Amino acid sequence: MIAGIIGATGYAGAELVRILAGHPQVDGLLAASAHHAGERLEDLYLNFQGRVSAVLEHPDNLIAAADVVFAALPHGTGEDYARSCMAKGVHCIDLSADYRFDGDEAVFRAWYGKGYQYPGLRRRSVYGLPELNRQRIQAMAAEGPVIIGNPGCYPTSASLGAYPALARGFAGEGPIIVDAASGITGGGREPVRAFHYPECADSLAPYKVGAHRHTPEIARNFQAMAGRPAPLIFTPHLAPMNRGILSTIYIPLAAEYRTGGWSRVSAPPDKDIEAAAAEFQKRYQEFYQNEPFVRVLPPGAAAATGRVRHSNYCDLSIHLDLQGCALIVISAIDNMVKGAAGQAVQNMNILLGFPEDAGLQAVPALF
Amino acid sequence: MIAGIIGATGYAGAELVRILAGHPQVDGLLAASAHHAGERLEDLYLNFQGRVSAVLEHPDNLIAAADVVFAALPHGTGEDYARSCMAKGVHCIDLSADYRFDGDEAVFRAWYGKGYQYPGLRRRSVYGLPELNRQRIQAMAAEGPVIIGNPGCYPTSASLGAYPALARGFAGEGPIIVDAASGITGGGREPVRAFHYPECADSLAPYKVGAHRHTPEIARNFQAMAGRPAPLIFTPHLAPMNRGILSTIYIPLAAEYRTGGWSRVSAPPDKDIEAAAAEFQKRYQEFYQNEPFVRVLPPGAAAATGRVRHSNYCDLSIHLDLQGCALIVISAIDNMVKGAAGQAVQNMNILLGFPEDAGLQAVPALF
Amino acid sequence: MIAGIIGATGYAGAELVRILAGHPQVDGLLAASAHHAGERLEDLYLNFQGRVSAVLEHPDNLIAAADVVFAALPHGTGEDYARSCMAKGVHCIDLSADYRFDGDEAVFRAWYGKGYQYPGLRRRSVYGLPELNRQRIQAMAAEGPVIIGNPGCYPTSASLGAYPALARGFAGEGPIIVDAASGITGGGREPVRAFHYPECADSLAPYKVGAHRHTPEIARNFQAMAGRPAPLIFTPHLAPMNRGILSTIYIPLAAEYRTGGWSRVSAPPDKDIEAAAAEFQKRYQEFYQNEPFVRVLPPGAAAATGRVRHSNYCDLSIHLDLQGCALIVISAIDNMVKGAAGQAVQNMNILLGFPEDAGLQAVPALF
Amino acid sequence: MIAGIIGATGYAGAELVRILAGHPQVDGLLAASAHHAGERLEDLYLNFQGRVSAVLEHPDNLIAAADVVFAALPHGTGEDYARSCMAKGVHCIDLSADYRFDGDEAVFRAWYGKGYQYPGLRRRSVYGLPELNRQRIQAMAAEGPVIIGNPGCYPTSASLGAYPALARGFAGEGPIIVDAASGITGGGREPVRAFHYPECADSLAPYKVGAHRHTPEIARNFQAMAGRPAPLIFTPHLAPMNRGILSTIYIPLAAEYRTGGWSRVSAPPDKDIEAAAAEFQKRYQEFYQNEPFVRVLPPGAAAATGRVRHSNYCDLSIHLDLQGCALIVISAIDNMVKGAAGQAVQNMNILLGFPEDAGLQAVPALF
Repeated sequence: MIAGIIGATGYAGAELVRILAGHPQVDGLLAASAHHAGERLEDLYLNFQGRVSAVLEHPDNLIAAADVVFAALPHGTGEDYARSCMAKGVHCIDLSADYRFDGDEAVFRAWYGKGYQYPGLRRRSVYGLPELNRQRIQAMAAEGPVIIGNPGCYPTSASLGAYPALARGFAGEGPIIVDAASGITGGGREPVRAFHYPECADSLAPYKVGAHRHTPEIARNFQAMAGRPAPLIFTPHLAPMNRGILSTIYIPLAAEYRTGGWSRVSAPPDKDIEAAAAEFQKRYQEFYQNEPFVRVLPPGAAAATGRVRHSNYCDLSIHLDLQGCALIVISAIDNMVKGAAGQAVQNMNILLGFPEDAGLQAVPALF
Repeated sequence: MIAGIIGATGYAGAELVRILAGHPQVDGLLAASAHHAGERLEDLYLNFQGRVSAVLEHPDNLIAAADVVFAALPHGTGEDYARSCMAKGVHCIDLSADYRFDGDEAVFRAWYGKGYQYPGLRRRSVYGLPELNRQRIQAMAAEGPVIIGNPGCYPTSASLGAYPALARGFAGEGPIIVDAASGITGGGREPVRAFHYPECADSLAPYKVGAHRHTPEIARNFQAMAGRPAPLIFTPHLAPMNRGILSTIYIPLAAEYRTGGWSRVSAPPDKDIEAAAAEFQKRYQEFYQNEPFVRVLPPGAAAATGRVRHSNYCDLSIHLDLQGCALIVISAIDNMVKGAAGQAVQNMNILLGFPEDAGLQAVPALF
Repeated sequence: MIAGIIGATGYAGAELVRILAGHPQVDGLLAASAHHAGERLEDLYLNFQGRVSAVLEHPDNLIAAADVVFAALPHGTGEDYARSCMAKGVHCIDLSADYRFDGDEAVFRAWYGKGYQYPGLRRRSVYGLPELNRQRIQAMAAEGPVIIGNPGCYPTSASLGAYPALARGFAGEGPIIVDAASGITGGGREPVRAFHYPECADSLAPYKVGAHRHTPEIARNFQAMAGRPAPLIFTPHLAPMNRGILSTIYIPLAAEYRTGGWSRVSAPPDKDIEAAAAEFQKRYQEFYQNEPFVRVLPPGAAAATGRVRHSNYCDLSIHLDLQGCALIVISAIDNMVKGAAGQAVQNMNILLGFPEDAGLQAVPALF
Repeated sequence: MIAGIIGATGYAGAELVRILAGHPQVDGLLAASAHHAGERLEDLYLNFQGRVSAVLEHPDNLIAAADVVFAALPHGTGEDYARSCMAKGVHCIDLSADYRFDGDEAVFRAWYGKGYQYPGLRRRSVYGLPELNRQRIQAMAAEGPVIIGNPGCYPTSASLGAYPALARGFAGEGPIIVDAASGITGGGREPVRAFHYPECADSLAPYKVGAHRHTPEIARNFQAMAGRPAPLIFTPHLAPMNRGILSTIYIPLAAEYRTGGWSRVSAPPDKDIEAAAAEFQKRYQEFYQNEPFVRVLPPGAAAATGRVRHSNYCDLSIHLDLQGCALIVISAIDNMVKGAAGQAVQNMNILLGFPEDAGLQAVPALF
C-alpha cells in the first residue's frame, strides 16, 4: 500500500513520514511539497538520512499514485486535493481545520476567515476523533472514499478528558474550563519571533486568551458528547518544551455527583473526597476500557506530557477538587502524535481495516 | 545596618543573600545554617565567589548581632528564633508558613500537621503581602518588633491577580479557579526524584491536585479582599523552567459586569468584548497605580514569567472570556523574588522605613 | 525467546525494557531489581502503563528463566550473576565497566577502585563495540555463552568518530582531543545535587576534567584501532538536555594528509580545504558503508544530538580545520540507546543471529 | 550624563538598555532604531514596561544629544555614525566587528566580505578588551574621542582563558584548541530556522566548524598576548540555553612546565598532577588578582555558565590533563554581558573615568 503525504515538509508532515516509515502495512511513501519539489526529504530533515528515500514531488503527481492521501496543509488550501482524491476514489486524511465543522460553514468562516470552496465535499467528510466517531468512520468507509477532518491538538486533548463526564452526565451547570499548554512544535516549522528560542525558553505564557480558534471545535465536541450545548472557557499557553499538550479540565459536577460543598478549605481532602475521586477514576477506566490509546492512570497518579512523548497515547488522571464539587481531569498527549500525525494514522488504520494500532505501537520513554 | 539570614544555604536563603548583597542600606550580611556552620557561603554557592564573604555561623550568634533577621527555614522549625528576635527587639521576617494564618491555628494544624509552639507570637505577627497589609505592617512596626509571615509564592501570584476583582465587586457567584504553574526552584534545593532533571525537563505536569496547602492561604486572602468567603479551586503544575509562577485566574463576573452570555462560541471576540476587556484593564491599572511592583500590562499583551525573571514585579494581563462572563487574569511573578526573597526584602524596607524598592530595582531582562 | 533484565529500575534498565518490549524476536520480558522485588514496573515508570506487565523479581529467579540476560548494575556488583549465566549457558550482556578491560585488571582497579571478583570470567568476555569486534563476538558465540562488556557512552561516541582516522592512518603525531558533552540522563536515576534541575538547567559546565574514567576505555579503543598507543585528552561536559552525547574530536593529521600549514587564519577555508574535507567525508563513508548504525552525513552538514534522539544511530560529520592540519569529527549518539541499551540489544542480535537492527529500527524524530 | 544606543531593538542593544538603566552615572538614555523610530521601547520589550521611557528616534538625532554613543549594529553598517561621533567629540563604543582588526583591513575584508568605508577612523579606534588594553584605552581617551572596537563574545571568553598561559610562557608548541559553546541569544533577535525553538531545544550541535569568523579575532589576541603567532583551532557549538559561553581551552605546555608524558592513562591523576594543577591555578590567580571581572575559581571547582548569568564576570577554572602535558582552562561568561553589552559598559567606564564596575555590580544568581 502506498501512502502519500502532501505538505510533507512541515512538522506535521514530517511526523507523518516518521510514523508511516515504520508502518507494517505501508509499502511505499510518496511525499509532496509545492515549494520543495525535486528536493530529497532526507536533506531537509537530516534525521531521516538513510531512512527515507522520498524525493519531493508535485501534489498532483502524488495523488495519482497513492492509495491513501494525507494533507498537512494550511487551513483552506487543500480542497482541490481532497476533491481529486474523491474523484479518484481514495481516502483523504486532512490535518487542517477544513473538515472539522462538517456542514457548519458559518462557524468555520467566522473563525478561519474564509468559507468552503466546495461545500459538497462535507457529504464525504467526517470528524476524525476515533473515540467519538469510530463507527461513523467505518460506516462511511464502507460506502466509498472518505475525507477525514483530523482533529486539532487542543480539541483532542480536551475532548477525551471531558468525554465520560459529558456522556455519563457527571457534568452539571456552569462552564467547563479547559486550561491547556502546548509544546512549541505546535507553532509549526516557520521561524517567527514568538517561537524564537530566546523568546520562549525558560518562560511560560498564555496566548490568544479568550480568542483561540480551537474553542468552537472543542465546544462542538462537548455538545456532541453531552447531547446539549456546554458552556466552555478555553485558554491556551505556550510551555518551554518541544512536544506535548497538557489540559487541566475543570468540570462542575451535577448535584447528585457532589461530595461536599463550596467553601470547605479548612483541611486537606478527607477519606470521603478520596473515595469519591477513586470512584470517578473507576468510571473513567470503564468508559475507556476498550480504547487502545486512552490510558486512565491509577488513583493518585498525575498525567504528564513527558510520559506520552512520541506515542499516540492520551493519558488521563482523574481528581476531585477539595470541596468535592468539581471534577478535575488532567489530559496529556503528544501534540504531534495523538494531536496530529498519530491520530491521522489511526484514522487511516480504521478506514482501511488495519489493526488500529498498526505503526503506532511505540512504547513511550520517560525522557 | 546588619541583616541576618537564618537558613542561608537553601534556595530562598541564597536568593536573600543575592538581593541583600546589593541593597544600599545593608552594611553587612550575616548568614547562619545549622548544618554548615563554619563553611563559607561562596564555597557552597560558587556564583557568590568574590562577592559574599560571609562564613556560616550558628543561628543563635546571628540573632545577637543582626538588626533584622530573615528566617528561611522549614515550616514549624523557627519559632524559637522568632521569639529570640522579639525578646531582643528586632524584626523577624519569616519565609515559612508559620505566621501566615495569624491566630487560626486549626487551619495551620490541619494543613501543616503541627500546631503553634508559641501561639502568643501571633500577637506580633502580620501577613506580609504589602499590597494588602502595608498600613498594618507600618502601624505594627511603629509599636515594636514585628514578625512578618512572608506569603507563599502561589498565594502571592494568585492574590494579586484577583485582588481588584474581589475588592471592587467584579467577582460574582461561583468558584474562582486558579490554574498555576511553577518553575522548579519552587521545590527547593534538596535533590529528590520529582525535581531530578530527566524527570521534569521537557515535560509539564500537575501535582497535589486538589490538595496543595497553599489553597487555604489563597482562600484567606480572597476572603480578606472580598470581605466574604469566595469559593476557590487551585491546581499547581510544575513547568520545565528554573524560575517563575504563572497563574491563570478565572473569575466569574457579577451579573452587572457581564457583557454577553454563556454559550456564544460561534465567532471570535467582537468589539463589545474587546471594549469590555479594555475597561477591566483600566480598572486594574487604576487599582494598582501606586504600587511599585505591580505592572498591569497594556490591552492585548499577555503576562509571561520570562519577563519578570530576577525582578520583584508581578505582571498582570487582563482578559475576558469569549462570552463576556468571566474575567481571566494572568499573573506572572518570579517565584524566588516576589514569591519569596524579594517580597521579604520589600517587607524589610517597609518595616524599617526605607524606600520600598531599595535593593529591588533590577530591570528584568527578556531572557 | 525470553529476555531478562537485572537492574531494570535504573535508567539504562528501563531503556532496555522500552526497546525490548518492541523487539520482534522477544516473546517475553523478565525484570529484576534487588530493591523493588514484588513491585510492578509500570507503577514505577508510569510511561509503561498498559504496555509492560513485568513484576520485578529477584535476580536469581530471573536468570533461571531467561534465554539471555542483561545486567544494568553498578560497576563491580554483577560478577555473580554473570557467573550464573555462564554456568547455565546463556549469554550475559553487562552494561557496567566490569568487562570492558578484558584481562587488564590493573587498569580497571586503578580507575574503578576494586579488582575482579572472578578474573577467569574474562575468558568468556568480549568488548561489545560491534563496529570493532563484530567478528570476534560472533566467533565466541559460536563456541558457547558469552559475556559482553557493553561499551560506555562516551567511548562509543569517541571511538566511532576516530576509528577510520586511526585504522587508515590519517592520524599523525600529537594527542587526539575528545571534547564531549552528555545529556543529563547520563548521570543515572538517583537524585543528586549535580543533576537537580535548578543546578544544571540552562547552564553548561565540564566535570571531572582530566580525571574521567572513560579515558582509559577510549585509549584502549584507540590503541586497538590504530595498532599503536595514541595520546588522548578527554573532557566531559554536562549539557542541559535529556539525552545525547556530542563528541568533537580533534585529530592531528599525518604529514601526507595535510593540506595547509599551521598559522593560516587570514581567510576562511578556500576551495582546497573544502575539497580536502570532502575527501575525508568520502573516506569515512566508505569505511562505514556496511555499518547499519553509523551514518556519515553529507559534506557541509553537522551532526547534532537532537537528530539521533531515541535511535541507535551514531551520526558523524567530517570537517577540516582552517589550516588543513587537523581533522575535526563530530560524533552524535543518543547516550541511552547507542550509548547503552540500544547497543546492548545490537549485541544481543549479533549473539543470537537475529538481524542486527531487529528492535532498533525507530526512525529518529527531529524533536 | 546621557548615553545613546543606536540599534537598541536588537538583543545586544536591549541588554545595553537594561544595564545602563541601572547605571549610577547615567542620567538619561536615548535609543535609536532605523526601523522602529517613533515606537516606545517598552512596547517592543514588555520586560521594560514602566522602567524605560525611551521613544525610539533616528540615529542622527541621537548622536546630537548623547554624551557617549553605543552602536549595536550589523557589521559594516555603522561607520557613518562613528565618524559623526568623532566629529562631535564623543566616544563611540561599537559592538560590531568593524573596529576589531585595527589597520588590518585585509583580514577584515577576507572574513566579513567588505572593506573599511573610512579606513582613517582606525587611528582613533582601539580593541576594547580591558584586561589586555586598559592602559591604551585610557591613554587614547586622554587625547580625544575614541572608537572602541568591542570584542566578540567567543574571543572574549577564549582570550581571557588563554592570556596568562600566553603571556607567561606556559604555552608550548602546537595548536591551542578552543572548543566553545554559546547560548542561543548569541544568534540575535531575528527569527531564523537555526534558532527556532524546536530545531535547537534539547539538542547540541556545532556550526561553522573550521570557518567561524571569530577565529581571526582570537588569533590576533593570542598573538598580542604571546608576542608571537600561536596556532589555533576554534570550534563553536550551539547549546540549548539562553545565555552563556563556555570555552574549553587546550593549551599544550612548554617542556619546562610539563609534569608527565603523553600516553599515561593507566590511572587517574596522582598527587604530582594535582599539585601541578594547583600551581597553575595560583599563577592564574596572581595574574588576574587586580581584575574586577575575572574570577579564578579555587582548585577542584569547574566554571559553569549558569553561575555568571546576568553578570559581567568571566569565571576561569584551571585543570591539567591526565598526562601533565596540556593545560585545560574552562572559561565561562554571559555572552550578552561580558561578551557584549556589559563589556561595552566596562569600556565606557574606563573611557569616562568612572569606577570600572559602575552599573555592573549585579551578584550572579545560581539559577
